[in-house]
Amino acid sequence: LPVTDFEDIDRVGREMHDFARRLWPLPRSISGEGLRATLRAIGERLPGFELFEVPSGSRVLDWIVPDEWWVRAAWIEAPDGRRICDFAVNNLHLVGYSTGVDAILSREELDAHLHSLPGQPEAIPYVTSYYERRWGFCLAHREREALPAGPYRVFIDAGHRAGSITYGECVIPGESEQEVLLSTYCCHPSMANNELSGPVLTAQLGEWLARAPRRLSYRLLFLPEMIGSIAYLARMREHLQRHVIAGFQLTCVGDERAWGFLPSRGGDTLADRAVRHVLQHLDADYTRWCWLDRGSDESNWCAPGVDLPVASVFRSKYGSYPEYHTSLDDLEHVVTPRGLGGSFRALRRIIEILEADVTPRTTVLGEPQLGRRGLYPSLAKKGSTAGVRRLLDLLSYADGKHSLLEIADLLDCPFHELLEIATQLAEKGLLTMHADPR
Amino acid sequence: LPVTDFEDIDRVGREMHDFARRLWPLPRSISGEGLRATLRAIGERLPGFELFEVPSGSRVLDWIVPDEWWVRAAWIEAPDGRRICDFAVNNLHLVGYSTGVDAILSREELDAHLHSLPGQPEAIPYVTSYYERRWGFCLAHREREALPAGPYRVFIDAGHRAGSITYGECVIPGESEQEVLLSTYCCHPSMANNELSGPVLTAQLGEWLARAPRRLSYRLLFLPEMIGSIAYLARMREHLQRHVIAGFQLTCVGDERAWGFLPSRGGDTLADRAVRHVLQHLDADYTRWCWLDRGSDESNWCAPGVDLPVASVFRSKYGSYPEYHTSLDDLEHVVTPRGLGGSFRALRRIIEILEADVTPRTTVLGEPQLGRRGLYPSLAKKGSTAGVRRLLDLLSYADGKHSLLEIADLLDCPFHELLEIATQLAEKGLLTMHADPR
Amino acid sequence: LPVTDFEDIDRVGREMHDFARRLWPLPRSISGEGLRATLRAIGERLPGFELFEVPSGSRVLDWIVPDEWWVRAAWIEAPDGRRICDFAVNNLHLVGYSTGVDAILSREELDAHLHSLPGQPEAIPYVTSYYERRWGFCLAHREREALPAGPYRVFIDAGHRAGSITYGECVIPGESEQEVLLSTYCCHPSMANNELSGPVLTAQLGEWLARAPRRLSYRLLFLPEMIGSIAYLARMREHLQRHVIAGFQLTCVGDERAWGFLPSRGGDTLADRAVRHVLQHLDADYTRWCWLDRGSDESNWCAPGVDLPVASVFRSKYGSYPEYHTSLDDLEHVVTPRGLGGSFRALRRIIEILEADVTPRTTVLGEPQLGRRGLYPSLAKKGSTAGVRRLLDLLSYADGKHSLLEIADLLDCPFHELLEIATQLAEKGLLTMHADPR
Repeated sequence: LPVTDFEDIDRVGREMHDFARRLWPLPRSISGEGLRATLRAIGERLPGFELFEVPSGSRVLDWIVPDEWWVRAAWIEAPDGRRICDFAVNNLHLVGYSTGVDAILSREELDAHLHSLPGQPEAIPYVTSYYERRWGFCLAHREREALPAGPYRVFIDAGHRAGSITYGECVIPGESEQEVLLSTYCCHPSMANNELSGPVLTAQLGEWLARAPRRLSYRLLFLPEMIGSIAYLARMREHLQRHVIAGFQLTCVGDERAWGFLPSRGGDTLADRAVRHVLQHLDADYTRWCWLDRGSDESNWCAPGVDLPVASVFRSKYGSYPEYHTSLDDLEHVVTPRGLGGSFRALRRIIEILEADVTPRTTVLGEPQLGRRGLYPSLAKKGSTAGVRRLLDLLSYADGKHSLLEIADLLDCPFHELLEIATQLAEKGLLTMHADPR
Repeated sequence: LPVTDFEDIDRVGREMHDFARRLWPLPRSISGEGLRATLRAIGERLPGFELFEVPSGSRVLDWIVPDEWWVRAAWIEAPDGRRICDFAVNNLHLVGYSTGVDAILSREELDAHLHSLPGQPEAIPYVTSYYERRWGFCLAHREREALPAGPYRVFIDAGHRAGSITYGECVIPGESEQEVLLSTYCCHPSMANNELSGPVLTAQLGEWLARAPRRLSYRLLFLPEMIGSIAYLARMREHLQRHVIAGFQLTCVGDERAWGFLPSRGGDTLADRAVRHVLQHLDADYTRWCWLDRGSDESNWCAPGVDLPVASVFRSKYGSYPEYHTSLDDLEHVVTPRGLGGSFRALRRIIEILEADVTPRTTVLGEPQLGRRGLYPSLAKKGSTAGVRRLLDLLSYADGKHSLLEIADLLDCPFHELLEIATQLAEKGLLTMHADPR
Repeated sequence: LPVTDFEDIDRVGREMHDFARRLWPLPRSISGEGLRATLRAIGERLPGFELFEVPSGSRVLDWIVPDEWWVRAAWIEAPDGRRICDFAVNNLHLVGYSTGVDAILSREELDAHLHSLPGQPEAIPYVTSYYERRWGFCLAHREREALPAGPYRVFIDAGHRAGSITYGECVIPGESEQEVLLSTYCCHPSMANNELSGPVLTAQLGEWLARAPRRLSYRLLFLPEMIGSIAYLARMREHLQRHVIAGFQLTCVGDERAWGFLPSRGGDTLADRAVRHVLQHLDADYTRWCWLDRGSDESNWCAPGVDLPVASVFRSKYGSYPEYHTSLDDLEHVVTPRGLGGSFRALRRIIEILEADVTPRTTVLGEPQLGRRGLYPSLAKKGSTAGVRRLLDLLSYADGKHSLLEIADLLDCPFHELLEIATQLAEKGLLTMHADPR
């Protein structure tokens, strides 16, 4: 795999941010044309990308796929003729899956259909009603409070029909049938950290992975949240259980405020260990979330009887930052090129571990004579061996029982630095590398 | 089992306190009529209660049952004719198992037979000499210091004879042959926390258990301390080892000052886990005693080769409160109705765990669609799912590998609250319940 | 084994310090006559001590034994005729393994061959160049800075020849073929804590061990560091792997400033547990070093494929005290009789554990009746049983699953005190002792 250095990260971060801007206005939901347009834009970047449709009414595991939602326009006309809550201006204004309506309402009648946040008076909240028919509008609380007496005309040109939900899949094959799962979702309207950062990062990783030969195969999923992973499991559970050695749920990976990790249900899979290692060296104070803090498709990937080794990597996790699920979660103040680029680098390091983690075995008994190989200072004085400590420490654990990742953790050394040393030792004939029995 | 609510606890606490008052004056020891009278009073409350006699001189495991002690009267007559240390006033005045005596002694001769506590000058100490013949009196240090020059007449109408020690047993059968052991002792004279709280609580639990059908069988033992559990093991060890799945040693359970837990020798039996769980939710700062702090029959229940899963629950543990083993350990300042009632509630919760701990298994793959079962809010907005978190968390651990108690600990949720949720889910067909393979 | 009491420790400490003074001036290196003279002086004290020579050029594991180094004289003559850096005054002045030279050099030319420590201007540093031919002198930085302009005459009457390296071995047989390894090194010139304290302690332990019958066999090794343990493993690895049950690397054991422990690579061998136990009771704040802090022959003893259970005991560990590897590491300010004596006592206690650790089993069911054996107070009152707690606690863990050392750790009781109690109980027939299945 080609290694991306730090200068690239800035460029990559800007590319990701640009792509997020392009996806921003598409009116996403768990079904419909906004979702399809988003998936097609992603698919243009990834060879082998495919769209899948799951028909409304399908029974998928315990769930029933809902009708498809379509929407053409939605607004409220105030008594003075001014249009407010216009879906064309911000698609958060319309409660997701609203039914159609065209009616004149009093101020009081209207109010029962409005959603706002008194504690965040400038924010439009994100509200949906997928599985029960209703309609509603979302707006800034400040604007709501200023609404004059009615009457109001409410107009929603939307509806439901037997159609399908849609998801995208891209498999990037490697030498091995062992797979890494990258899962993200594409069903939220115009919000940046939750959720555009997820699909944008996943697409960028896919481009990078497709660029060069690799040991493992990669399966990238772009789903409508919950119903998408349920539908995918209905089709592919046994395949995943046979092949996936590590997986990552990717959302809320676009800001610069924090790092976070939410373990798989098991808690100590290869995926968990790789994330912990990388975050430890990026920011030892990263937030340790626990399984009880979960809130997305990992609930399905790790459910009893599914039990995939899927961990979650976050910057600021959903529910933990003030702009979450409001119009304030944007590409200006929350998600930044640098935040996205940092997440790309973190995932790249995690993937490099999965690609390169092997079990080294020393070829000599006792400490090798490094001096005659030019690896040890010939003049011994106080402090002269500091530079060879990691090399000797690696050799001392190269007993065939510890993988490179385990040794990196024992040495508190970044995996990629230890890999360089291991490679150097292997070239000198002092180490052999073995596939982990794992 | 019928659930007792909190109002009941106050009533139950008063009942227990009243019963303790009734037992208070009976002159208990490890043998004799005071012990028998105490056991008979308990037996009146418990169906199937039986008295057992173990003859003096019997070899029981490593021990020899001592002679039975009888006592009719004991006092000292001061030079002015005043009676002090009168056994009829407080049976702590006489050293337990004292021999008979009728003699005139000088002040100095008498002093060699007196016991008092300089650091607690108002307290009559509790002193016994079961296995060596001597006589003595116990009194408040303040009173001792005021004793004038002699002569004194000492009179003890007491003695030893080939008789027996006595214990009471009550088996309350359930559907299963698996047993819960409740062990307490009845050999201390007029002291409240150590020991009347123990037999009073055990009797109250027995009444409650006998009132309704139950899954497990319960074996209640009312013993003279040490020699009683030794004698019981000599007769019943193999039965106990085959049937007892959890046991509790009950003493010092009557005050309101603290909660405490002393584990079984193994330290992680079902009994230990149930106590830890219940105390955690009653008072997370409960005192964690360790096996080395033990001091009663658990030494025998958990001894090498016996190895019963017996844990101890305390309010203020013996040895840890100032009134311990003195006349100050009374029913006014130390043991209260509320203290006794709280212990009843704690043991009831522990027993409810033993009765109801099963292993739940989810019936669906992936997260179930709670919405179509009316268990999930149809309108999704920030914070709307807080109410269903525990339900989803329980389902996420319902993999057939975790018992309800284990899941309750993982969720930091009181067992009885989780049991309600599990029952609701089982009614909806989302869970099945399985006997723990334990 | 005869127990040495504390008064002895002072005498033993002085003996060790005297012996270190005797060895001080011998010009040690990893080969040569200074090393042989040191080993012979040690050998005089130990019955069965043998010298071994390993010829230059021998392949030993991954290493090649270097040529032997000889040195007769070395000094620098300053322009004023004064001799400085005279090897006869302090053998640290000459870089170890220097080649011969006789030349006139300018001040600048000389400087390229000088070593000093700007941060410790009074200290002569210790420098060697075993595996590359060069020459050099070491001196106090203060002296170096005062050197006038040249010319200087440098004279080193030294050289290398096909010879051998030398080590000493002493096997003290016991009843069992199980062995304890004591490893120390003898290749450093005049420095006290690192290293004379090591061979001096090991010799003293050897004398003590040889004095009385013992259960285990003891193998004492006096080696040139690194190349010595490599050469020894080349000859004896399989024997060691079959017989050694615990081993100790001994250096830096002569000062009074600290206690330290560096575990074997495995970290929880009998050797590790014995050291931890003894240091815990000598000074609970002893320094816990980790495997990554290692820096001597334990690298070979514990290397992958060798895997001997060798732990290190320290006072102030190499690298951690300011005088380390300089002329300041002396017998006046760093190493003291009391420091050496304390280390002797610590190692003696460790060895006593290895000799006496067995698995006790109680012979009775339930707590034994200590009273009828005179082991329990006949008069029971508050606090009367404090004196028998350890005895009862020991019995409560005498289940055949815990060794005495494990029980001592559970009871936080020094092993030798628990051993006394166990012996007393065994005499009363309450315990039997069993060889640990370990």
